[in-house]
Parts: sequence; structure tokens; C-alpha cells
Amino acid sequence: MTETRVALDVMGGDHGASVTMEAAAAVSKDTSIDLLLVGDPDAIARGLDSHEHDPKRIEVLPAMEVIGQTEKPRQGLDTKPDASLSRAMQAAASGDASAFVSAGSTGAIVLAAARWVPKIDGVKRAALAAVYPTKERRGNPDRFALMLDVGATVRCSATDLLFFAYMGNAYAGRISKVNSPSIGLLNMGREETKGGEVLATAHRLIREDESLNFIGNIEGNDIPMGVCDVVVCEGLVGNVALKMGEGVGEVLKSVSKWAFKQNLVWKVGLTLLARGLRQLKDITDYSEYGGAPLLGFSRPVLKAHGRSEARAIANAIKVAAKAHRDDVCGEIGRAVADFQARSGDDGTA
Amino acid sequence: MTETRVALDVMGGDHGASVTMEAAAAVSKDTSIDLLLVGDPDAIARGLDSHEHDPKRIEVLPAMEVIGQTEKPRQGLDTKPDASLSRAMQAAASGDASAFVSAGSTGAIVLAAARWVPKIDGVKRAALAAVYPTKERRGNPDRFALMLDVGATVRCSATDLLFFAYMGNAYAGRISKVNSPSIGLLNMGREETKGGEVLATAHRLIREDESLNFIGNIEGNDIPMGVCDVVVCEGLVGNVALKMGEGVGEVLKSVSKWAFKQNLVWKVGLTLLARGLRQLKDITDYSEYGGAPLLGFSRPVLKAHGRSEARAIANAIKVAAKAHRDDVCGEIGRAVADFQARSGDDGTA
Repeated sequence: MTETRVALDVMGGDHGASVTMEAAAAVSKDTSIDLLLVGDPDAIARGLDSHEHDPKRIEVLPAMEVIGQTEKPRQGLDTKPDASLSRAMQAAASGDASAFVSAGSTGAIVLAAARWVPKIDGVKRAALAAVYPTKERRGNPDRFALMLDVGATVRCSATDLLFFAYMGNAYAGRISKVNSPSIGLLNMGREETKGGEVLATAHRLIREDESLNFIGNIEGNDIPMGVCDVVVCEGLVGNVALKMGEGVGEVLKSVSKWAFKQNLVWKVGLTLLARGLRQLKDITDYSEYGGAPLLGFSRPVLKAHGRSEARAIANAIKVAAKAHRDDVCGEIGRAVADFQARSGDDGTA
Repeated sequence: MTETRVALDVMGGDHGASVTMEAAAAVSKDTSIDLLLVGDPDAIARGLDSHEHDPKRIEVLPAMEVIGQTEKPRQGLDTKPDASLSRAMQAAASGDASAFVSAGSTGAIVLAAARWVPKIDGVKRAALAAVYPTKERRGNPDRFALMLDVGATVRCSATDLLFFAYMGNAYAGRISKVNSPSIGLLNMGREETKGGEVLATAHRLIREDESLNFIGNIEGNDIPMGVCDVVVCEGLVGNVALKMGEGVGEVLKSVSKWAFKQNLVWKVGLTLLARGLRQLKDITDYSEYGGAPLLGFSRPVLKAHGRSEARAIANAIKVAAKAHRDDVCGEIGRAVADFQARSGDDGTA
């Protein structure tokens, strides 16, 4: 692989340049990653003034428009040709940069990648992967697992789901350094014929591929238990499941707050608990992990959480650089090509 | 409506006759519901001997086989013609009973209903509804909401989803006594065009029906928040979401237990918390609610939780009787017929 340069959408995220520039400055100083900073040159200059950085590793690509977090993605891309998110994606697509990072709107990132970045040969559908904390997984010190797709697609073919397994396998193996990641197919029962024809065929295709460590169908309650390193599913199902999990967490938090007000006994209990919960947070903090990868494109595309602080953005940049250096996209491409050669599937099924 | 007689699968559930007979005896004594007890006559006789009951309200239908909780549903039905679950379902189908209750295998109940009980005219697909606790819902003292389908179907048509809305509307309105239940369509975004053609069309059909109080698309995190009384979804999505919610709860419980062992501060906090959590349990205890209805058939079919104790079974019997007396199935049938007359949809779409 050639030199690694990450295109950073400086204006993306809830905090915009103030946070992304802090992250960029730190990365330039602490790592050997080159950066292409895309956004308002004044904001970038102010950011560089305020933070110690290594100017040799930094180049600036001016972009004067910003797509908001709540803006309609298609409309944003269409009406703001000079948006930082678009310019950064185009730089990754053209080879001016080798990877892309943004804390901007997920919808706009998915759409921009689809518009400008070529897909890996043979891949029909990209997948947005969520990185989520689980119960401790046997033999794996990493408390995070990967679920894909969680919203880039609605319905998928069986071959799409097989390719999602290749994507998850390559990403978890290279980035999370899980040796032979275990893969589960999300379904409504464990029997291999469950869930209709697409899921039954996907089950067979994934099982028949000896390069994959397939544990079979899993169910919704297996996701947070961490029964596998990679959960493969259609976007609609994955999106709903992921948000359901977030929602249950939110409700428990608000029930605790309500209890806190109601009852002195609870109050004492919760005050004591809070200290321990902060420790747990360190184990499962998403900012440690960087971002959610959008997989299936010929360049690493990383979406950082909108609420990201500088540490999360910096980690997303490092993950994107590592995905490029370790050739995650190439590994996915080889798995897809092998399958097509073996099966005579030219991707039209 | 004529007299109400509930067919009870005495042998179903983790505890079998010991628990179902306690429930049946109590119902015979405390209510005006007639019971058809289906199962091993010896076990039934022993149950009647041990519990005070009203013999005038009780009739027995012998059935000498039992379908186990982990048995393959189709195989169980095929190889055990004299199974209590099958005999009870056939009694409801023939009119010997007006409703069905079992704590047996969900798969076998769904399959047995499909095999013997006629669907409501015009309904193509039945829906299994889950009753689940939510955060307090505005203007609704009932802490439970209804989600359907959670596993009787995989994929649905837009019309199926509209009919699920009718089913949920009738059930929540009559059984939970929610006045004009609010209905949400589970999707991966709020925009009405989200989620592909089936969901976009379902959105339009539900919105256009003035008899329904439709709040629009909802997302996974809205489910436990209780933003609506009835969540409409395809079976695969509903099943995964429901189990994901259960899984997150389980993980939090096990994390708490782990913490309990680790840390004295947590230990004190959790001991104090436990008392409050028991109070919360009373609000959301599923045994208060009875069972999960299987909707779309011409008779009320209630599935009680396998772990049900006598109180939960008794409540399921009362709910089944109420569903019959209040003609929930008839209300669903009228809504379906109205839609077909209005739209010229003969159900073949």
C-alpha cells in the first residue's frame, strides 16, 4: 500500500471544527498519518493556531458549505456542491486521500459514498456497521462486537448477506484483531430453514464458506450477550434492533432518575452505584472505538458519532488509517472474487 | 354473543397441570366463565381434588399426548394426534369452545391455529402480538403496549400490515381499554417513504384509514419509550426487536450481579436498590397481563408464557373470555371488510 492520508470532514459533527481540529492536531503530532483537512479554511487556521500540531502532515482542502445533522441527505448533497462532507468524500474517491472520516450526518455519508466512491468489485450493496458493547465474549478481550448492516440497505439478497459476512470478517479480523471472528446470522430462530428463503439461502452460503467461522443463526437476545464477534443482518432488522437496545438503556436510565426522586433508599443506592457505573463506562465507551465503518466501498469510510469529542475523532482517524494500511477493502474484494469464481455467481442473482 | 367457554390446554407450560389446574379451579369459582379442560383426565382429576372449584363450570375433554416446549412444532402436531394442545385448538375451531388458552410451545400454537381455525374473512396472515412494558405513556395508565407481528410471519405485504393495525386497534381498544389506541409503524426512519416499497405503502394505507389513530413511523428506540399503544411490524423485525430488548435487560442484570461480587460500594448500592426493583416489578409483571394474543383467526387464541404461574394462566383465561364477549374478532373482520369494500382490494394484492 502507498502512503496513508485520511480526508477529515472538519465541519461534521455536533461540535464541528472546534473538536475535529483538536483531534487532527493531536493525530498529526502523535502518529505518522497524513491528513487532508476539508472545510472552512478560517476555521481550520483557527484550529491550527490553538493546538500544537505537525504542519508537515497537514494539507487543507477548502470547502465553504456544511450539511447539517438534521438536513435531508439528498437535498444537502444536491444543493451544497461545496459541502465539506462531499469534498472530503470526493478526495477519497479520486485517490487524493486514502480514507474518509466524518462525524456528520449518517444519511449524507452513505449517500455521498454511493455517489462518488466505487464499490468493491462484485459488491452490490454496502453495509453500515455498528460497533456495540457486549457482555464479555469468551476468548476475546475486546468488549465490542460488530453488527452489519444497520441502515444502509432495507432488503438484501442472500449473496448480499454473504458479502456482509466477508466485510465483517475482514474488518473484525484486521481492526479488532479478532483471530477468525465468529459470525452469526440474525434470524427469528436457530433452525437453518427459519426466516424465509433469503435467510435460509444466506445461512447455507455462509456455512459452506470454509474461510468463515460461522456459528449459525442467532436471535435478538444473543446480540447483547456477545455470542459472536460479527452479526450479519438486513439493514431494516439491524437498525431496529440496534435502536431498540439503545431505547431500553435510555428507559432504564430514566426509571433510575425517577426512582432517585421518589425514594430515599433508592437515592442512597443510586448515589453509590453511580461511581461504579462510571468505571463500567470506561470499558464500553464508544469513543475508545472510533467510529462505525461503512463497508463495501473501495476506500475505508468511517462515520464517527455526531456527539464525538476529540478523542473519538482521533480514534476514528487512526482506525481509518489502519483499515487502509491493512488493506481491509482488498481482503473483502478477494473473498468476493473467490466466491464468484467458485460458484459461477456473477453477482446478478 | 353466546355463552363463553374457554378451552384450556391443561398440559401446556413449564409446570403443566399443577399450575393450570390451580388457575382453572380459581376461575371456575371466581367468574362466570365456563371451562373446557383438555388433557390427561387423571391429572385433571387430581387438580380438581386439590383445589376448591365450581364443577358446574367445568367440562373435561380427554387428550392423552403432550407436545413438549422444545419439540419441533410440525413434528409434534403430526405425530401426536391426541395432543392436548391440538384437541383444545380443534374444540375452539369447531365451536365446542369459544376461545383457546395454552402456555405450550408458541410454534405449535401458531401452527395448530393455522391448521384448524378459520382465519377472519379477508385476512391472509395472522399476527402474534407481544404485550410488553413501556415507560409511562401519556394519557394511558396501562403500562403495557402491544407489538405485532413478533414471529408468526416473516415478510408481509402492505395490506397485511394494515390488517395488523386493525387487529392491534381492536385488541388494545377492547382488552386494554385504550380509547382510540395510538398506532406506530416500525421502520428505520420517520420519513414516510423510508424502508422500501412495502413499508411506504403500508404507511399510506394506515394513514388514509380514518378509523385508526396513526402517529406515523416509529424507530426501535421508540418501542420501550412507549410512544404508542400499538406497534405494527413484520414478524422478523418484531421478533428480533423484542428479543433484543429482553437480551439487554438480561445483560444488565448479569452485569449487576458481576458488580455485586466485585465491589463493596456496589454491593451496598445494589442491596438497597433490590427493594425498589421489586416494587417496579409489580408495575410491569407480565403475569398481570395474561398472555400474548394470536390475532387474525375467527376465535380468540391466547398464548400464556411458558413460565406462567397460576395467576398468569387465570388472567389469560379471563382475557380470552373477554376477547370473545367483546367480539374482538368480529371488530377486526368488520374493519377488514370495510377496507375491502372501500378500496376494491379483494385481498389478492
